[in-house]
Amino acid sequence: MRRYDRDADPVEFGRVVALTDGVFAIALTLLVLDLALPTQAADASLAGALADTAPRFFAFAISVAVVGTFFLSHHELLSMLQKVDTGLLSLTIPYLGLIVLIPFAQSVLSERPGEPLAFALYGLVLGCASMIAAYMLWHAHRRGLLREPLVGRNAWFEVARSGLPIVSFLASAGLAFLIGEWAVLFWVAIWPLDAILARLQRRETQPAATS
Amino acid sequence: MRRYDRDADPVEFGRVVALTDGVFAIALTLLVLDLALPTQAADASLAGALADTAPRFFAFAISVAVVGTFFLSHHELLSMLQKVDTGLLSLTIPYLGLIVLIPFAQSVLSERPGEPLAFALYGLVLGCASMIAAYMLWHAHRRGLLREPLVGRNAWFEVARSGLPIVSFLASAGLAFLIGEWAVLFWVAIWPLDAILARLQRRETQPAATS
Amino acid sequence: MRRYDRDADPVEFGRVVALTDGVFAIALTLLVLDLALPTQAADASLAGALADTAPRFFAFAISVAVVGTFFLSHHELLSMLQKVDTGLLSLTIPYLGLIVLIPFAQSVLSERPGEPLAFALYGLVLGCASMIAAYMLWHAHRRGLLREPLVGRNAWFEVARSGLPIVSFLASAGLAFLIGEWAVLFWVAIWPLDAILARLQRRETQPAATS
Amino acid sequence: MRRYDRDADPVEFGRVVALTDGVFAIALTLLVLDLALPTQAADASLAGALADTAPRFFAFAISVAVVGTFFLSHHELLSMLQKVDTGLLSLTIPYLGLIVLIPFAQSVLSERPGEPLAFALYGLVLGCASMIAAYMLWHAHRRGLLREPLVGRNAWFEVARSGLPIVSFLASAGLAFLIGEWAVLFWVAIWPLDAILARLQRRETQPAATS
Repeated sequence: MRRYDRDADPVEFGRVVALTDGVFAIALTLLVLDLALPTQAADASLAGALADTAPRFFAFAISVAVVGTFFLSHHELLSMLQKVDTGLLSLTIPYLGLIVLIPFAQSVLSERPGEPLAFALYGLVLGCASMIAAYMLWHAHRRGLLREPLVGRNAWFEVARSGLPIVSFLASAGLAFLIGEWAVLFWVAIWPLDAILARLQRRETQPAATS
Repeated sequence: MRRYDRDADPVEFGRVVALTDGVFAIALTLLVLDLALPTQAADASLAGALADTAPRFFAFAISVAVVGTFFLSHHELLSMLQKVDTGLLSLTIPYLGLIVLIPFAQSVLSERPGEPLAFALYGLVLGCASMIAAYMLWHAHRRGLLREPLVGRNAWFEVARSGLPIVSFLASAGLAFLIGEWAVLFWVAIWPLDAILARLQRRETQPAATS
Repeated sequence: MRRYDRDADPVEFGRVVALTDGVFAIALTLLVLDLALPTQAADASLAGALADTAPRFFAFAISVAVVGTFFLSHHELLSMLQKVDTGLLSLTIPYLGLIVLIPFAQSVLSERPGEPLAFALYGLVLGCASMIAAYMLWHAHRRGLLREPLVGRNAWFEVARSGLPIVSFLASAGLAFLIGEWAVLFWVAIWPLDAILARLQRRETQPAATS
Repeated sequence: MRRYDRDADPVEFGRVVALTDGVFAIALTLLVLDLALPTQAADASLAGALADTAPRFFAFAISVAVVGTFFLSHHELLSMLQKVDTGLLSLTIPYLGLIVLIPFAQSVLSERPGEPLAFALYGLVLGCASMIAAYMLWHAHRRGLLREPLVGRNAWFEVARSGLPIVSFLASAGLAFLIGEWAVLFWVAIWPLDAILARLQRRETQPAATS
């Protein structure tokens, strides 16, 4: 399996990053395509048409935050790497395949508000993407691609932070049939929980480098 | 909070730039999707169909200039940075969420020419984007991420130049209900005013380096 | 003919890479546009609508894998280069022209499932793209743009691996009229066959560097 | 006016490149959106539907070649630069605004085949883009941003090669009303003519470095 060093092969390392950034940028932008005003409403008032798109605006804002969070956490994963190998490159493809599904899942969500299945689909797509992201970290750990090996408490925090979105999105997918649109709460809860874990991780593992 | 140095972590610094550039590039390109000829006009003359799209061409040209200006001013902001931190990265996400709304605001504008609410929406989106951009500069200043600290008259000029688009776009959003399409003048006025401020800033702060 | 060295002219070398990565990222993302729920099905159940899009999901998954594989193999080609010249740059344009045809070929495939011609079109587009990729390697070899010259058994393996997708896609295009949707098997067979060739190539040419 | 050196400010220099590459990549990809099969033709044969899109395929191929040529020639322009300044950055915005118009001009062309006005529009958009590109070179020359100053015969060749697409596209725009679709010949003629000029330029200015 070929390996590309971050410094020795900057172009090769950078290309995976570039493809990923491109896909994130486009997925982020595709979300807005869902906001188009209904074309048949030419006689209706613009205020009414905008009010009708309010749920879509809400879904748009959630999805921008979700795609952004995935980008930032992929950013954090890559910043921990010293090298990439062919295996990690290959994992990138299905990961990006799931990221580009987010605009589709969002459009289902905003066309069928209140349908449990729409929430389950959204949770399933993001839960699977989180699983691949966690597997990438595990692969990088096992193959020695990380800058610093994951050991001790730090390793446990990385496991917990990788597992949080998997559990949360998959649980929301399953529970959507019981709790309906409240499944959104599972998604939104990821932000404060991850922020708490990140703060604890920094406190316990880098005692001398608080900002 | 993690920090990424421009030189020590070029990939990490560069990724935020890459995501941002990608979103700007796509937002710029999405603007053209608004220009499609009306499909039902197959029997009408092409000259007439093109003439009908003239207001859309005008809105397209304004929006290309606006997106381009936001890109150049984000470019100038980043060129002042020595580092990025997680806080600045997180601010990038809602900023980009607003940038991708520009093609939507433009399409509302060109589908409903003359409606004050369409101008108000456009001004509101761009006013909010300008507010986040100004907050990014403030955050970078406070956390010591700038290459050179902002002091003295230079700091005042940066405040004035950051505040100009906020005031101008938000004022146009509010006044659109009184002055209608003349709100565009508020947007167009930003270019000459910012050029004057930039010229004064250079004269007062870099007396020996005029080009 | 101008030549751009990887190290001496990083921007010029990088731009071809950036354009290519951008096109791959967009092609990957355009594939999802094919997944939109049928709009007229507002009264039908969401479960039914999703079940109806199952063949499209299948075509989407195949195409994500195909575009990803082309990206990884272009990545491997570029990692073998020491320089690019104008000839190689010019070859990139028709290559990218074929890559952006993949979402079109996929949409034909998912709108006309079971039509031999749809499979033939898909195979033809990808066979031609593979031919240009192989010609790029040949051009780089002949003009001395490679980091290490291709010699001995290694050269034969590169020929075999370059030829595999050409033969496989073009054969599927021709045979589609006889075997219908089984043409997909020719495409899927490329992955294990290439993996076997890559493993043999590493074993025979780099006896001391197995990971 | 701020200046960004290629080596001292690689991120700043690179961002203009990244935005430009992004826009080119998207413009290249948008061209394919024009190829969608007519949706109402579900009962017609696929072979017939594909045959009906043949003129669109032809327009697609021409436009891929045109966008690719603009990319390569912008690539060559940037490779001649030592620095960028704010003026050059600002010129990039209207240039990209015209590049993103190419998919629109192409869709007009393929929806109204045979209409002189469609050819005139296409020629006008590309003629204006060529004018801005030529002005960028002139600006870089005048402000001393070039790696090597343009002098002697080399300068004349650059003028001729910059002027060729301007004259050719604008002439085709004007003559389209007389010669109709033969205007395409003016566009296609640019490739061999520029290749001849490039060959002469190399022979006369770099007598010792033929490849």
